[in-house]
Amino acid sequence: MIDISQKSVVYREAVAYGRIKLRRSTIEAIRKGLVEKGDPLLVASIAGIQAAKMTPQLLPMCHPIELTNVDVKCFIEDEDHVACRARVKAIARTGVEMEALTAVSVALLNVWDMVKKLEKDERGLYPETAIEKIIVEEKVKKEG
Amino acid sequence: MIDISQKSVVYREAVAYGRIKLRRSTIEAIRKGLVEKGDPLLVASIAGIQAAKMTPQLLPMCHPIELTNVDVKCFIEDEDHVACRARVKAIARTGVEMEALTAVSVALLNVWDMVKKLEKDERGLYPETAIEKIIVEEKVKKEG
Amino acid sequence: MIDISQKSVVYREAVAYGRIKLRRSTIEAIRKGLVEKGDPLLVASIAGIQAAKMTPQLLPMCHPIELTNVDVKCFIEDEDHVACRARVKAIARTGVEMEALTAVSVALLNVWDMVKKLEKDERGLYPETAIEKIIVEEKVKKEG
Amino acid sequence: MIDISQKSVVYREAVAYGRIKLRRSTIEAIRKGLVEKGDPLLVASIAGIQAAKMTPQLLPMCHPIELTNVDVKCFIEDEDHVACRARVKAIARTGVEMEALTAVSVALLNVWDMVKKLEKDERGLYPETAIEKIIVEEKVKKEG
Amino acid sequence: MIDISQKSVVYREAVAYGRIKLRRSTIEAIRKGLVEKGDPLLVASIAGIQAAKMTPQLLPMCHPIELTNVDVKCFIEDEDHVACRARVKAIARTGVEMEALTAVSVALLNVWDMVKKLEKDERGLYPETAIEKIIVEEKVKKEG
Amino acid sequence: MIDISQKSVVYREAVAYGRIKLRRSTIEAIRKGLVEKGDPLLVASIAGIQAAKMTPQLLPMCHPIELTNVDVKCFIEDEDHVACRARVKAIARTGVEMEALTAVSVALLNVWDMVKKLEKDERGLYPETAIEKIIVEEKVKKEG
Repeated sequence: MIDISQKSVVYREAVAYGRIKLRRSTIEAIRKGLVEKGDPLLVASIAGIQAAKMTPQLLPMCHPIELTNVDVKCFIEDEDHVACRARVKAIARTGVEMEALTAVSVALLNVWDMVKKLEKDERGLYPETAIEKIIVEEKVKKEG
Repeated sequence: MIDISQKSVVYREAVAYGRIKLRRSTIEAIRKGLVEKGDPLLVASIAGIQAAKMTPQLLPMCHPIELTNVDVKCFIEDEDHVACRARVKAIARTGVEMEALTAVSVALLNVWDMVKKLEKDERGLYPETAIEKIIVEEKVKKEG
Repeated sequence: MIDISQKSVVYREAVAYGRIKLRRSTIEAIRKGLVEKGDPLLVASIAGIQAAKMTPQLLPMCHPIELTNVDVKCFIEDEDHVACRARVKAIARTGVEMEALTAVSVALLNVWDMVKKLEKDERGLYPETAIEKIIVEEKVKKEG
Repeated sequence: MIDISQKSVVYREAVAYGRIKLRRSTIEAIRKGLVEKGDPLLVASIAGIQAAKMTPQLLPMCHPIELTNVDVKCFIEDEDHVACRARVKAIARTGVEMEALTAVSVALLNVWDMVKKLEKDERGLYPETAIEKIIVEEKVKKEG
Repeated sequence: MIDISQKSVVYREAVAYGRIKLRRSTIEAIRKGLVEKGDPLLVASIAGIQAAKMTPQLLPMCHPIELTNVDVKCFIEDEDHVACRARVKAIARTGVEMEALTAVSVALLNVWDMVKKLEKDERGLYPETAIEKIIVEEKVKKEG
Repeated sequence: MIDISQKSVVYREAVAYGRIKLRRSTIEAIRKGLVEKGDPLLVASIAGIQAAKMTPQLLPMCHPIELTNVDVKCFIEDEDHVACRARVKAIARTGVEMEALTAVSVALLNVWDMVKKLEKDERGLYPETAIEKIIVEEKVKKEG
C-alpha cells in the first residue's frame, strides 16, 4: 500500500465506463421489461454503488476513503450492448478511479447474473456473452 | 432471487477468463519484478480468491454457496496483456460461473491497481489501460 | 450460540412482515415515481435481500446458512404506510425467521433513507415517520 | 446517492429509539438473568454498535462516515417491553440518523434472537413478539 | 486453496486456546467490574464468535463452512492473565481449527482493546501487555 | 465505545510485532519455496493488510478510521520462527495500535493456515505450533 499520509486532501472525481455484449433477444427482453428476475439495469446500478463502497475490501492495496458521491448508470447502448458508467467523488488524499472501475465491473457482473437464463445455451454456457471493455474516462483533481 | 430449494445438490465447476491491456513497459516491469507495490500477479490471484467468496455480497440475486475450491491464476499472456483464469468448484444447488467471473473481474482490477503508476499519463489518466474481455470458458455439472 | 450439530437438515421457510408510517404526501410521491433518489420500493427490496444474507454478521448468535431463496416485496399498503414482506427458504439445521426479520427491518430502513428529504421537518427531525410493526407471519418446517 | 461533496463538515449527533414487545415471562427471565444464550440486553447493545458501523453496507444510498461515537443502551422499559436507544456522533458532511436507526433495529433483532425459545409457541411461531416502534428522537448539527 | 470437493462430509470439532498478559491492576479491575468501556470478557466472547464466522474473509485459503456451533469463553486465568478458549463445530469437508484459532485471536484483541487505558504507560505504549500464546488444544473428526 | 468527537485530528502511527513457532522442517520448506499452497509470507502479508482495514468490524469498540498506510512484513526470524511486523498510519482522532495488532494477528493466522499440512501430527493436531507473542513496539502521535 502506498503511504498517502503526506498527500493533501483535495477534491477528487473519476468516471469509469464498461460494457457487456448480450444477445439481441436479451437486449430486447430488458427493453421490454421481460426479465424474470427483475430490471437488470436497476439492480446493477444499486449493486455498483454498493461495490464502490467495498473497494478497499476487494483491493488489498486500496485505502479506505469517505466517498461523497457514487452515481452508477446502466443503460442499453445499442442492440448488442448494455453499458455502465460510474462517477465517484471524494475529498481525499488519493484518487477514486479504482472505486469507479469497481462499481462498473460489479454492475456489469450483475447485468450478466440477471440475464443468465436468456444467455445460456443448452450446455449452460454463454457463447455470446462477454464483458468487453472497462476503462477510465475522466479524472478530476481540484485544490480546495 | 431464483428459488433453488427443489434443485438437487450436484458437483459444479466453472472456469472464467479475462484479460487486461497494459503498456509493454508495464508488462516488462511485471516480468522483471520491478513493480514497487509488489507482484501484481500474486496479489491479484489472492484478491480474486477472496472475491469469489464475496460473490453473494456483490451480486444481490446470488445464493450463498459453500465453495469447495477456488483457483485463480494470473499470468503474462503476451507482450500487451495480463490474463486471469479462475476455476471454482462446489457441491451445490446452483452453478458457480458468477463466482468464477467475479474472481476474474476483481483479480483484473487488482492488476490495474498494482500498476497504476506505470500506466498513468501526465493528467493521471489511463489512455492505454483497458479490461478487454471477460468470459465463461467452461462449465461442469455432474450428478453425484 | 445454540449447538445445532445434532439437528436434522430439513426444509425451512419463514415469512416476516413490517411496515413504516409515512406522510401521505410521501406515499403520494412514491406512487407517482417522484422520489429524487430513485424508487424506494425497489431499492428497499434489493437491500432487504442483501441483508438476509448478512444475518449471521448482524446477529452474533445466528448460524451461517445456505439460503436457497430470499424474496422481498415492498408495497404501498394504504395511504399512510409502506409495508415489506420477506419470504426466506433454506434446507438447514435451523429456522430462518431471523433472516426474514432482518430482511424486513433493513428494507424498511431503506424506505426511510430514500424518503428522508420528504419526511424531515425544518429542524431535520421526523415527527411522523415510524417503523411501526415487525412480526413473523408464517413458518414452515418440512421433513425431506 | 445524494452528492455531499459541497456540504460542510460539521458536528452531527442523532438519537434513535425502538422497542420490542415480549411476553411478561420473557421479560422476567431477562431481569433474573435466566436466558440460556446469555444476556440479551448486552449482546444486543454490542451488535447494535457493530450495526451502526455497517450502515453504508446495509443502505445502498448511505455515505461511509467516520463515526466518532456510537452508544447503544438496551433496557427493560416496562413489564411488556425491552427498549433500545442509540446515540451516534460524527464530524461529517451528512447526518447520522440512519446509523442510529440501524443500530436500534439490529439491537432489537438481537433481543428477539436471544429470547426466541421463550417466545415461540408450539408451532414455532411468535404470536406475541413484535418490534413495535422505531423512531428518531433527537438530532444535533453544530457548526465547528 | 486446497480442493476439498472429494472429501467426505463428517462431523468436525476443534478447540483453540490463547491468553493475554495484563497488569495485575487491570486483572483486578476486570474482576471488580471497573472497566469503563464495559465487561472485557463478555465483549471479547461475542466478538470471538463473530470472528469465527468471518474466518474465510480473513484467511484467503480458507473455505466457507456452515458452522453448527461456536462457543467462546474468556476468563481470568490467574492474577496476570486473561485466557480465551473457543470450541467450533461443523458437519463439513474440512477441519475447523482455523475458525477456532481466529475466534481466540480476535477475542484476545478485544480484551486488549477494552483495557487499553489501564495498560498504557505515559507514552501511550504497552510495556507489559502481550498476547502470549495461541494453540490448538483438541480436534475431533467423526464419521457420521 | 469511547467518544472521540472532541479529540483533535493528528498524525498517528503504530507498529506491532508477533511471531509463530513452527517446526524447523516447515521453516526450511518456506525458505525453499516448497509450501504447496503458495508462499506463506506473501499471503500472510496481504491478508494482514486486509485485516487492518477490517479492524472496526472485528473490534466492536473500535472507531472506523481512514488509514493512510498499512505495511505488513512477514519474515523468517530464526530457524524456529516466522515473525510479522505491521506499521499502520492515519491522520485521525484516535491511535492505530489495534489496527496494527489486528494486522499482525491475522497475518500469523494465515502463516499457520498455509503450513497446516506440514505442522500436523498423525491425529491432525499441532503439537509444536504456537503463536507465541504479539506486542506493540512503537507509537507515534504528532501534532500537525
